[in-house]
Amino acid sequence: MSKKIVIVGGVAGGMSAATRLRRLDESATITVFEQGGYTGFANCGIPYALGNVIKSDDALVLRTPEDFKDRFNIDVHLHTEVVGIDGEKHTVTVRETGNEHARQVSYDKLILAQGAEAFMPPIDGVTLDHVVTMQTISDLQHVRDLMSDRKVNHACVIGAGFIGVEVTENLRNLGLDVSIVEFGPHVFPPIDADMAEVLHTELKEKGVKLFLKTTSRRIEESRVILSDGCVVPAELVVLAAGVRARTDLAREAGLDLGRSGVKVNSHMQTSDPDIYAVGDMVETQNNIMAQPTMLALAGPANRQGRLAADHICRKDVQYRGNVGAAICKIFDLTLGFVGLSVEALRRLGHDPLWVTVHPPDHAGYYPGSQAMTVKLGFEKETGRILGAQLVGKMGVDKRLDVFATAMQAGMTVLDLEHLELGYAPPYSSAKDPVNMAGFVASNVLRGDCEIVHAEDLNLGTLEKLQLVDVRTPGEFARGHLPRAINLPLDSLRGQLALLDKSVRVVVYCQVGYRGYLAYRILKQSGFDVANLDGGYKLATEGGIIIKQD
Amino acid sequence: MSKKIVIVGGVAGGMSAATRLRRLDESATITVFEQGGYTGFANCGIPYALGNVIKSDDALVLRTPEDFKDRFNIDVHLHTEVVGIDGEKHTVTVRETGNEHARQVSYDKLILAQGAEAFMPPIDGVTLDHVVTMQTISDLQHVRDLMSDRKVNHACVIGAGFIGVEVTENLRNLGLDVSIVEFGPHVFPPIDADMAEVLHTELKEKGVKLFLKTTSRRIEESRVILSDGCVVPAELVVLAAGVRARTDLAREAGLDLGRSGVKVNSHMQTSDPDIYAVGDMVETQNNIMAQPTMLALAGPANRQGRLAADHICRKDVQYRGNVGAAICKIFDLTLGFVGLSVEALRRLGHDPLWVTVHPPDHAGYYPGSQAMTVKLGFEKETGRILGAQLVGKMGVDKRLDVFATAMQAGMTVLDLEHLELGYAPPYSSAKDPVNMAGFVASNVLRGDCEIVHAEDLNLGTLEKLQLVDVRTPGEFARGHLPRAINLPLDSLRGQLALLDKSVRVVVYCQVGYRGYLAYRILKQSGFDVANLDGGYKLATEGGIIIKQD
Repeated sequence: MSKKIVIVGGVAGGMSAATRLRRLDESATITVFEQGGYTGFANCGIPYALGNVIKSDDALVLRTPEDFKDRFNIDVHLHTEVVGIDGEKHTVTVRETGNEHARQVSYDKLILAQGAEAFMPPIDGVTLDHVVTMQTISDLQHVRDLMSDRKVNHACVIGAGFIGVEVTENLRNLGLDVSIVEFGPHVFPPIDADMAEVLHTELKEKGVKLFLKTTSRRIEESRVILSDGCVVPAELVVLAAGVRARTDLAREAGLDLGRSGVKVNSHMQTSDPDIYAVGDMVETQNNIMAQPTMLALAGPANRQGRLAADHICRKDVQYRGNVGAAICKIFDLTLGFVGLSVEALRRLGHDPLWVTVHPPDHAGYYPGSQAMTVKLGFEKETGRILGAQLVGKMGVDKRLDVFATAMQAGMTVLDLEHLELGYAPPYSSAKDPVNMAGFVASNVLRGDCEIVHAEDLNLGTLEKLQLVDVRTPGEFARGHLPRAINLPLDSLRGQLALLDKSVRVVVYCQVGYRGYLAYRILKQSGFDVANLDGGYKLATEGGIIIKQD
Repeated sequence: MSKKIVIVGGVAGGMSAATRLRRLDESATITVFEQGGYTGFANCGIPYALGNVIKSDDALVLRTPEDFKDRFNIDVHLHTEVVGIDGEKHTVTVRETGNEHARQVSYDKLILAQGAEAFMPPIDGVTLDHVVTMQTISDLQHVRDLMSDRKVNHACVIGAGFIGVEVTENLRNLGLDVSIVEFGPHVFPPIDADMAEVLHTELKEKGVKLFLKTTSRRIEESRVILSDGCVVPAELVVLAAGVRARTDLAREAGLDLGRSGVKVNSHMQTSDPDIYAVGDMVETQNNIMAQPTMLALAGPANRQGRLAADHICRKDVQYRGNVGAAICKIFDLTLGFVGLSVEALRRLGHDPLWVTVHPPDHAGYYPGSQAMTVKLGFEKETGRILGAQLVGKMGVDKRLDVFATAMQAGMTVLDLEHLELGYAPPYSSAKDPVNMAGFVASNVLRGDCEIVHAEDLNLGTLEKLQLVDVRTPGEFARGHLPRAINLPLDSLRGQLALLDKSVRVVVYCQVGYRGYLAYRILKQSGFDVANLDGGYKLATEGGIIIKQD
């Protein structure tokens, strides 16, 4: 007897499951119900289609139902909603859009892949026609219609996560005046404030207006009133304030839910072993915090779909959890992060160590080299990597993936020191940024260098320190930290007498390397000393210390 | 008492050791002897300085002896050769260039970092003035002098490894007519012929003349006579036929040598525990073949220098061996490889499995996406990754580093399936090229797909097969393999009756994916079937099968 498999949801996770099932079982009956008007479309491309970076919406439609039928013998029903599940009878209740008549469809195995939906904040005016979400091709077409029907000069994007920022960039590239409203203190809530500050600078340079630590109180026809009283002109409002797992169907069917999505085991089975759930609607194990989390990323969704199919076809593979590797283009910058930020780790009760380096993406003597900022968090006791955040231009994506791979392999920062990576001048340095982060972190872990972070310094603490800027007099003159004295590294050995051994010294340079060398000299000369992590660059660009005029 | 440390060689490994020593021990006396005229220069940049990609030679000189003195309190003596070691007395004999007088310098610990020198093939005319090597800034200046003294229109590069190909590209960009003479059957001897063939195409497209499987018999004033009788015009001849570890000093001192370099333990100690050796002159463990090899790469040299310093300062760290990660720009292409090629593995008596995929560097619907070719070798029994070779445009360096990291973590191809990497449309696909290679390799390892390689097919074997091209009729019409019939994938299920179940079937498509889908259909329908690895693209571009006209 051939298996009868029903899949609810025809995008990433659902279609990965469907096609994998067909590859494994030529005889199965595979039926997909998708409530929207498209299947197999590239939802990650939607912001770029809006900005005409992707020139044709057709490019987003990777496969049609006909393609799936011809190639995979899979039946995809669009505009068809599954409104109920009877787990005991092994049936789902199905209804086509605009058709009151519902019908029962039986299954041997059911896979839920309903994804997540944009969170609709409870704001006055949120249901107005010019308030849109950006998840589907229909959303895209709706915005295009809006923009052709009326003059849209101003847009307000509510929420500064991936979609919010991607949409912002694309609307800005269309020539609109764009404001972002973010409830949190910085864009991209999963990263740390100092890393986000660099992104703030980029966004502002590109003409984006940022409204942070505030919310939208009321949306009107051509403006948004914020809770702090600010008024943001907006003929278009994009809701990008996060997503919520679509769990209604699962809940009504009595399946176990977690805090943020449907509960599944490592085979992607729900509490009903004949019902699987995959993708944005489920909670999976985050391997850093060792707790279930909801993760709205296409890569994991695809792998989970594949795994559900494997398990249905009696293959013994298990989902390994995730490390949350994510990347985003922000105008000329790239942000990559994996694992947890220092802020997130602290919220969970951890007390991580971290270091910040600014290595060039490739050899400085080869044209086009540009510095990136890498912040690496790790466990105090073991050196286990807990998170990496990267901001820069070229080569950020490469180092993100190396960190992600290292984390999945259970590597420590000590392993990063030894990591052998490909080097030629156009691509990297003999000491790759990943090695550099590893060197600095290992020095801290082993006690070869003590660091302080900008957050630990303020005018009060600085009063009790000798703060030494070891850069050149020229660099010092262009700007330095309050209360710093200038003792350039290259003449430091001869000037130790200028410092008081009974008072703690904090040294800093531009990015941290010369500070480390100064630290080593001072430490071995008997000083109580620490180096400022990330140097003057981070302290100023990270927005933590106000530099002295 | 402060330690007295002498270092022989002032470039990558030597200066890494020197600076690390200073960071760890402020009191040590550190003396470096460098026989050339520069220290701390970027030898990897030499070809690019020749081609004016790097505009100024000054950019290659990262640090001068004065810099090292000021910053690190290290004494660097240029133009100074160490001509003898007395291990018992702990002294070296030192002589400055042009000075007959030698002097003795004592050491507590000695670090040899002499590097490797270009192999001088025993050819008539090899000592002529227009025959050069490309290792140092002096070499660079010599070539510049040559090119200003006489009209140089033609260059002949002997050897097609990294330096040979980098020099070729740069000379070509200067407008010269460039020929490469390579003894082996293809450029880059460490990679496989099919991968190299793609590079041959690129080199020829860029106007480079390739003379393979031949050697230079005689070099004359303005031409090179090859052993096959060909005459290559050349007013400039660049020797890039590999390097040899500089072991004379070590040998005369009675230190143990291996087949290709000085023997060292994991602390970089030679057979005399007070003498360390690092960089291109030593043999270190290759972790794939588990045997000592000489490796002329800057990354490992730097790490080894650091480790020698660590050990001298009583830190317990060990060199972990290497995987041989390497990368090279070849005009518009990038070649990356790590581990061993299939050819190299076979020479060592291994019988590896391998797969070849052609994934796009980033989402196909986002502008600029381009396919790369990834060849992944792995162990039949365990799936352990033995080697990866990559050729393409963008994103090759990223995947190389992910493979290199995965190999150093001991991952198998099964782990690559699960690997979570950063995805957004400008950077990758939800299924990254590394995942794709992992999927295909895992399918082969688990027996979910049987593949054949182009090398297994010839007109004789094809006679005994049913060779099925599952691409579209249009693709088939533009070119197909000899004796193939066309049964497009999307209608294959209805045409199974056209095939004979008693005769083995080999299917292929353009890159391998549709072939895999066809394989699954046919296999489950009872056929004896295999899919052609890498598809029509590899079979033709890899130069193995001559396509039917």
